[in-house]
Order: sequence, then structure tokens, then C-alpha cells
Amino acid sequence: MNKEQKQSVIENIMTRRSIRNFTGQSIIPDDLHTILAAGMSGPSCADVRDWSFIIVTNKEMLGKMADANGRYADPLRNAAMGILVCGDLQRAFKGAEDYWIIDCSIAAQNMILCAHSLGIGSVWLGTWPQMERVKEQAKLFKLPEHIIPHSVLAFGYPAEKEQRNVKDFDDSRIHMEQW
Amino acid sequence: MNKEQKQSVIENIMTRRSIRNFTGQSIIPDDLHTILAAGMSGPSCADVRDWSFIIVTNKEMLGKMADANGRYADPLRNAAMGILVCGDLQRAFKGAEDYWIIDCSIAAQNMILCAHSLGIGSVWLGTWPQMERVKEQAKLFKLPEHIIPHSVLAFGYPAEKEQRNVKDFDDSRIHMEQW
Repeated sequence: MNKEQKQSVIENIMTRRSIRNFTGQSIIPDDLHTILAAGMSGPSCADVRDWSFIIVTNKEMLGKMADANGRYADPLRNAAMGILVCGDLQRAFKGAEDYWIIDCSIAAQNMILCAHSLGIGSVWLGTWPQMERVKEQAKLFKLPEHIIPHSVLAFGYPAEKEQRNVKDFDDSRIHMEQW
Repeated sequence: MNKEQKQSVIENIMTRRSIRNFTGQSIIPDDLHTILAAGMSGPSCADVRDWSFIIVTNKEMLGKMADANGRYADPLRNAAMGILVCGDLQRAFKGAEDYWIIDCSIAAQNMILCAHSLGIGSVWLGTWPQMERVKEQAKLFKLPEHIIPHSVLAFGYPAEKEQRNVKDFDDSRIHMEQW
């Protein structure tokens, strides 16, 4: 990549912020496809790709997803789209199935970063490991037993002023060569 | 972002591939700083930022990290740098501490994507949830009890031909409006 291309990538990572207020504008199918392709492009344990994505645009269903995800999930109610990221235990790496949690996290972060580059804001609404949320989402979507809700992502065009500040660099978290 | 900038971000996400063979070239401090800043820019549960990073460039120590991480960790032995991503249970979200697993995954993926844009290859070597690896890394680095090894990332300049193929888009993982 040339210097400008690198800068675009790094700026996109650094300027991503949680967006909780969205305009009514919907997300075009091409952009949704790009976001999903980004989600599928991350590494996964032994390349098992142990995730599935439920895309919701129906307003009533978005409200139900918010209800199922407890406090702080209200951004879903005005989102253009919610994605329920799910792990798939039938595909998960045998012997260390819990890698599904990491694999779904990678997919979700890729989608969020891709959306940000497209001008689409998002907020990550935690589901797993809060098991009452996991259970409620599974019930809402009548999921098979091997499909486990991981996270809800709310997407839409930002109706709030973008924060362009960069998060603090915290030297205290860096340990050189040893703890 | 303009069209070209968007394309840079999306291309960077789509073309990241695990790199396991590295040249001897070391990573300059500026690039390391950028990679770490990217790691710190992701969302975390309630913004607790419950991670720490141990950066290792010493060859002997890289060998020991590889030994501690079991099979498939050999890329560390010729890497310019290894990063042990750790969760910090003292900072983790109270009441649902296991969000640290997701928060560390986000940080790691951000670092990998940032490195890729800088021409630096990487491979993600799973540690958690394989508890023998977690234990061995904790022992090697004499970690306090609240610091939990999550993943090892090996970084370096690629000594293998870059694969520019894009991962399959798998329609079977997409569920519209319902499961």
C-alpha cells in the first residue's frame, strides 16, 4: 500500500467510535454484502469459520432484539439494521470449542471497521457472556441448540456528530520483553 | 472517506492472510507504536480496556513463547516480534468479566489489520481457551494472577508470496430477518 492508502486504513481503525443515534436511511444491499464479506474475511481457529449472521431490518423485530438484549440496547430501535452474530458449535474447533467466542469477535470487529469506512456507524451490544441475553436472543430467533448468540451489532447512518478524537495511548499497558 | 480511501480499508480487510514465514527485518518503533495504538482503539465492554500487551523481540524468548504455545507456534521462531495479548481481570467489567475475551480479540484483530496495511504480516496463534497454553505462557512471563494470556500474535515482514485471494463468501451463513 502507498502512504495514502496506509493512512486511510489506520485512520479508519483509529476513528471508529460507537454510534448510538441513526438517521432513517437504510443500508443498500451492496454495502451489506461488503460488510458481510468483511466479517467472513477474518481468521478463525483452524479456519473453521464457526459463525453465522442474522440480519434484521424489520422495525418490530429490531425492537424485540433490543428487549432481548437488556439495558443499553436501545440504539437498535432506531438502527437501519441489526446483526446477531452467532457461534456455530457444530463447526467449532473440536477439543477447544470456545475458540468460537474469539472467531465471532473477529468477524464482528471486521464488520464494524468495514461499515465505518462506508460512512455507516455502529455500536457493539454485548450479548455473550451475559447468559440471560444469550437465552433471550436464542428464544427470539428460535435458534437450534448448536447456534449461540454472541453479539448484537446495530448499524445505521450517524445522526450524531462524529467524534474524531483518538483514544488514549496507555503506556502502562505495554510491557517490553517481559511483564 | 472518498472512494479510493474506502477501497483501501476494504482491500486491507479482505486481503489479510496468515503469514508464517518472515524475513529477518525488524519492525521500527514507529510502526510498533502505530500497531499498539490500533490495538487500543477498539471498543471494549463499558470501555474498561481490560488488556495488556507484552512485546517480545528477543530470539530466545520468542523460542520460549513458541514452546509454551504448543503445536503450530513455530512461526514465532522466525518472527520479528511476538505480542502476548493478555486480559486484565482487575479491569474487566464487573458482573460479566468474561467480556475480557471479546475485548482482547478486538484488540488483536485491530493490530493485525493495522500491521497488514504497513506491509507487516502476522499470524494469530491461539492460546486461550487451551488452558495448558494459558498456564505455560503465564508461567513463562511470571504473570500476576489477574493477568490472563489470551493470544500470541507473531509479526514480521513476509518471506512468503502474499496470497491475494479473497475468502469465500458463504451465503449459507446469512439469515435474512430470521433464522
